[in-house]
Amino acid sequence: MWQENNVTKLLKIKHPIIQAGMAGGITTPELVAAVSNSGALGTLGAGYMSPEQMRKSIQQIKGLTDQPFGVNLFIPEFPKEPKATIDQTNDWLRPFREELNVFEEPEVSKNDHLHFNEQIQIIIEEKVPICSFTFGLPSKETMQQLKKEHILTIGTATTVKEAIANEEIGMDMVVAQGSEAGGHRGTFIGPFAEAMIGSTALIPQTVDHVNIPVIAAGGIMDGRGVMSALMLGAEGVQMGTAFVTSVESGTKKQHKEAILHSTEEQTVVTSTFSGKPARGIQNDFIEKMTKYEKELPGYPIQNTLTQSIRSEAAKQNKPEWMSLWCGQNPRSIQEQTAGEKIANILSQVDDLIEHTIKVWG
Amino acid sequence: MWQENNVTKLLKIKHPIIQAGMAGGITTPELVAAVSNSGALGTLGAGYMSPEQMRKSIQQIKGLTDQPFGVNLFIPEFPKEPKATIDQTNDWLRPFREELNVFEEPEVSKNDHLHFNEQIQIIIEEKVPICSFTFGLPSKETMQQLKKEHILTIGTATTVKEAIANEEIGMDMVVAQGSEAGGHRGTFIGPFAEAMIGSTALIPQTVDHVNIPVIAAGGIMDGRGVMSALMLGAEGVQMGTAFVTSVESGTKKQHKEAILHSTEEQTVVTSTFSGKPARGIQNDFIEKMTKYEKELPGYPIQNTLTQSIRSEAAKQNKPEWMSLWCGQNPRSIQEQTAGEKIANILSQVDDLIEHTIKVWG
Repeated sequence: MWQENNVTKLLKIKHPIIQAGMAGGITTPELVAAVSNSGALGTLGAGYMSPEQMRKSIQQIKGLTDQPFGVNLFIPEFPKEPKATIDQTNDWLRPFREELNVFEEPEVSKNDHLHFNEQIQIIIEEKVPICSFTFGLPSKETMQQLKKEHILTIGTATTVKEAIANEEIGMDMVVAQGSEAGGHRGTFIGPFAEAMIGSTALIPQTVDHVNIPVIAAGGIMDGRGVMSALMLGAEGVQMGTAFVTSVESGTKKQHKEAILHSTEEQTVVTSTFSGKPARGIQNDFIEKMTKYEKELPGYPIQNTLTQSIRSEAAKQNKPEWMSLWCGQNPRSIQEQTAGEKIANILSQVDDLIEHTIKVWG
Repeated sequence: MWQENNVTKLLKIKHPIIQAGMAGGITTPELVAAVSNSGALGTLGAGYMSPEQMRKSIQQIKGLTDQPFGVNLFIPEFPKEPKATIDQTNDWLRPFREELNVFEEPEVSKNDHLHFNEQIQIIIEEKVPICSFTFGLPSKETMQQLKKEHILTIGTATTVKEAIANEEIGMDMVVAQGSEAGGHRGTFIGPFAEAMIGSTALIPQTVDHVNIPVIAAGGIMDGRGVMSALMLGAEGVQMGTAFVTSVESGTKKQHKEAILHSTEEQTVVTSTFSGKPARGIQNDFIEKMTKYEKELPGYPIQNTLTQSIRSEAAKQNKPEWMSLWCGQNPRSIQEQTAGEKIANILSQVDDLIEHTIKVWG
């Protein structure tokens, strides 16, 4: 098994594997704790959580593990959209709502800036050891607050430029999210389309341009992916889709099923669900809404507008209208407990190392 | 250094590294021979070559090396386009031609089916040891002819399905081309957009579904990329952009310069130059022509229509109108001889193996 490296040392974990802090109910306290109890790092995806929900989940995690875990937050965004854009989008969404018997149109209130600050306060009060960020950088003041409390920080980058920005603001490490990754793109500088860099290209170029440890994300599904990332110069990996199908996850059953039956060709990057590009399995909602993609309101407004459709579609068993986030490497995924998954990865890593030493030693 | 594997054994080479058979004058006999003389596999990119040119180049290579080398061929395509599409495209291209003083409009004659068959005959007559294919599969008859002559065959796939099709027709090995790759996409089943799979996802899924050796391509630039591909289950790598900048290559100087100054965000996949999606450095030609992309004639007709623009642009030093093919990992490329490049890769591989054994052994 591997020796300590910068990532395991800083995070005080045994294996340089991070379960991604996926939002939307996937990362239950049970999943986070199971991952951390296996010697990897579990992460609560608190992006969409209210401060109260978040505090409750953190306390539940603490009841289930005494190992380090992380909480992932979304850097808030406040797009302004004219009423006409909202009205037009509601018109486009009406056929879905009508078929699902969803009658009210969601109110698009501004998401509250204080919300993020409250989340930060809870992380400090609850002494969460690790805080990770997606969709941008927190303010310098927030970074200082966290540093003062010795809370480790992990940022997200999809380009070398973004990784450098993460290092400059003081992140302890940075996740380099390759184009293979499922779910939302973490891009926050420049156009999304220019930041679709495959991991084989993104990881070494990032490693060459920052001094903080780089964590590879995107398409990593097993021990082969872990070893591949380490060879490219990453000191750890972050795995999302692999844990979406964990027994302990809160993933909706249709979402799990869809991943378990998907192939590498079936995912697309779409902003139709949330207003921000994200990789998921192609379905009828995406197909119908893609023609309006450029005219839809930005994230998180579009996310609010489609929320009742997505949750009702799950209740009424219509996966064709759910957001089925998934990376490009779903063929070998199995439904397992997080502990089984991590044990399998470690055993593959051991085999690969043994093989390497035999062939080259 | 590595021991023999299926790829080195079949190809009778020392290092499981293939220089991609890039068309368009890049793979000079000097480059092919230099790569083969270094213990890797040089490949003549004969896709656009006339049978006579091809034979001459093969004979030149034989004069420069006694090591195995390959020839890459394009599976021919015969799209039919209405005259109106050609006329419309000529209208769109006219401003470029006028500024470059290119007066004639190219004649769009059908590319000749016999041309491909002649190329195959030359490969047999010249006893070329290895023949690789892009853009599809040759006929069963062609495969049988080559097998009878003990010529090894390498196909190209961008999805698992395409890799399986390569195995079924009898290819000895298959290149799995990840979305990071520069130049033309090898996709031949289904839509191009669905076949943009990052290497970290494409390689292990392909390895799991075929029994022939898989060669990883896309974004591999150095020893880290080579080791990463081997960990994912590939038994060899194919490198294109890395050799475009070789001292021995026939690459136009503006193209080399553009790669040497590019970053991971600056490439795009465009079909504006040839009618078939290919990854290159964003420039003015792509910017101006992208709005017509869906209406342009298919490959190879569009390639013929833009040819004089591209070659005149090179002569008149206008890189903004040249096709500057490049993968997503250009930041660390240096102009070196092919021998230096391969020596550097091998020394990085040795270091990585030594490090692995030290950390884990």
